[in-house]
Amino acid sequence: MNSQFEIPALNTELSSQIQHKLDNKAKPVGSLGRLESLALQVGLIQNTLTPQLKNPIMLTIAADHGITAEGVSPCPVEITWQQVNNFLQGGGGIGLLSRIYGMDLWVVDAGVNHCFEAHPRLIDAKVASGSENFLHKPAMSPENCMKAFNNGRQIVRRFFEAGSNVIGFGEMGIGNTTPASALMSIICGLPVDECVGPGAGLNSDGVKHKAKVIQSAIEKHGISESVFENLARFGGYEIATIAGGMIEAASCRMLILVDGFITTSAALVAKHISPRVLDYCVFSHESDEQGHQKMLRHMNASAVLKLGLRLGEGTGSAIVYSVLKGAVAVLSEMTSFEEAKVINTSHIRIEK
Amino acid sequence: MNSQFEIPALNTELSSQIQHKLDNKAKPVGSLGRLESLALQVGLIQNTLTPQLKNPIMLTIAADHGITAEGVSPCPVEITWQQVNNFLQGGGGIGLLSRIYGMDLWVVDAGVNHCFEAHPRLIDAKVASGSENFLHKPAMSPENCMKAFNNGRQIVRRFFEAGSNVIGFGEMGIGNTTPASALMSIICGLPVDECVGPGAGLNSDGVKHKAKVIQSAIEKHGISESVFENLARFGGYEIATIAGGMIEAASCRMLILVDGFITTSAALVAKHISPRVLDYCVFSHESDEQGHQKMLRHMNASAVLKLGLRLGEGTGSAIVYSVLKGAVAVLSEMTSFEEAKVINTSHIRIEK
Repeated sequence: MNSQFEIPALNTELSSQIQHKLDNKAKPVGSLGRLESLALQVGLIQNTLTPQLKNPIMLTIAADHGITAEGVSPCPVEITWQQVNNFLQGGGGIGLLSRIYGMDLWVVDAGVNHCFEAHPRLIDAKVASGSENFLHKPAMSPENCMKAFNNGRQIVRRFFEAGSNVIGFGEMGIGNTTPASALMSIICGLPVDECVGPGAGLNSDGVKHKAKVIQSAIEKHGISESVFENLARFGGYEIATIAGGMIEAASCRMLILVDGFITTSAALVAKHISPRVLDYCVFSHESDEQGHQKMLRHMNASAVLKLGLRLGEGTGSAIVYSVLKGAVAVLSEMTSFEEAKVINTSHIRIEK
Repeated sequence: MNSQFEIPALNTELSSQIQHKLDNKAKPVGSLGRLESLALQVGLIQNTLTPQLKNPIMLTIAADHGITAEGVSPCPVEITWQQVNNFLQGGGGIGLLSRIYGMDLWVVDAGVNHCFEAHPRLIDAKVASGSENFLHKPAMSPENCMKAFNNGRQIVRRFFEAGSNVIGFGEMGIGNTTPASALMSIICGLPVDECVGPGAGLNSDGVKHKAKVIQSAIEKHGISESVFENLARFGGYEIATIAGGMIEAASCRMLILVDGFITTSAALVAKHISPRVLDYCVFSHESDEQGHQKMLRHMNASAVLKLGLRLGEGTGSAIVYSVLKGAVAVLSEMTSFEEAKVINTSHIRIEK
């Protein structure tokens, strides 16, 4: 399966050259902390000592979820399509923050139960009008799931071909913490209780009910050996589209910004399809949704920011994009000791 | 003493109006986490429901330290003036990051042992060519300490009068973690051992030596009841200038961005002069310098970022300025449920 999704290995021979360049910047060795490790990662991804972030794209991918019929979300399902329209007008969290941080926002209809008017920023990749209620039948047929996955690949490929080398993923879909928790439980091998949380604002009874629904669905459909089959049974159209988009982005050596709980569940799926995808991922933030931390730990990922966000949409990725601009500039633009005419102290190192 | 430094109380009656406005943005209540609490703080500081960040200034304040004669830093003291010149050319960490994040950088000579050529971005506020070696005599005379403090006030006042409402403080001064640790120990009432760390890269013997030097100095000069007197005995010119600048900034209702360990020690001094100054402070990041966390805890402050930075110069403040742009925009610009035509879910709240 993996050979279908060829992701280039990073040229780790470049690591020592990048590290040497960072160590000779006019500052104590290592004193820019996470900015330096992010710079190293982006340098390796772009295979250069002078990385640049070009045409940053934010893809906010939306879908509806049949599982909402089980009362797993406190929010009316109409909010999915209403927010899509809001984002397209520059509103909502991601409409605002992508503008503030200079990312180019595109909204994808991967499976929303609404007929949208055409809009220059709306990408029509609708496979169905929402997933099925996976308490009773698989969320998606295998064919539809693969369609959504391939849609993600094609969309990302177009942005790559248009000159983008950094892409943030976000999502909108009332009820989508439920498929994300189900996939997390299955892929991480964790009890459902450890994978659920309040989402947009469930109370504790609601959280228990959500866990029970997921547990029953897993018992009904069983767990497959195939990650695609599990994605089809328990996932959702935006999650499948994002997972495909991430695989393609990594194949194109693009930097991937992963947002919150749902987007991270898509990264988890992508990792189990082709593990190298993680080399291309920056995990933007640790959300307040319980389970997100465990999912990050499962992937040995440490998030850059911890700001108590639990909105999704790509909002954490938009903020971290701004941190990455600084990180990349440290490697590509910051003066060395020599250029700065500052005495070289790169032999002085903090003891570990 | 406090009446000399009148800092306006925040109009907390506005809190509930700001919170109501935030709760009616088109998103789950509270889901933008720290961005919302920062927005609330800036709204209160500016006493408005539509805050704006205007003409952001980064003041990087430099000085030399006589205590370096005791071998408390692994770095040559010439680096202080060399870095000042580097920053003025747009180099170094703060030269780079203030440009990347859109802050207007000014470098202040508060007491560097070097005769600088005039430069349009260099502010001459030199009180002396560095502090005295405080192992043997007070770091500054009370008069010189007050001069530096008042210089900080005047500099900030000029930026306020020129239309700025947000100011970041950073510093450059080889050896300045030593006065910062001494002030921390005295003001927080903590053992010196808990207040020292490797700074730019001392090894563990060096850290022990630094602690011993500070302990001996405290035994020699004793601890005063007056924070100004302690600042004079154990501080430094950049720390005194920053403390004065912070007091003035708060008096002018400016938002203050506090950087790392040394800048936070100046905030600690300022707090003990006039506690309300903290209402105007955003603590940008928690540095890797041991003791910084304890100093923050002493002030009930929680840093926005944790990026393993230990450079100073204002670099953490430059990054957090970018987070604040998002936070302020959430309050001032983000669409409400009504504007967004999204069903209002502001009655749905996460249980605490």
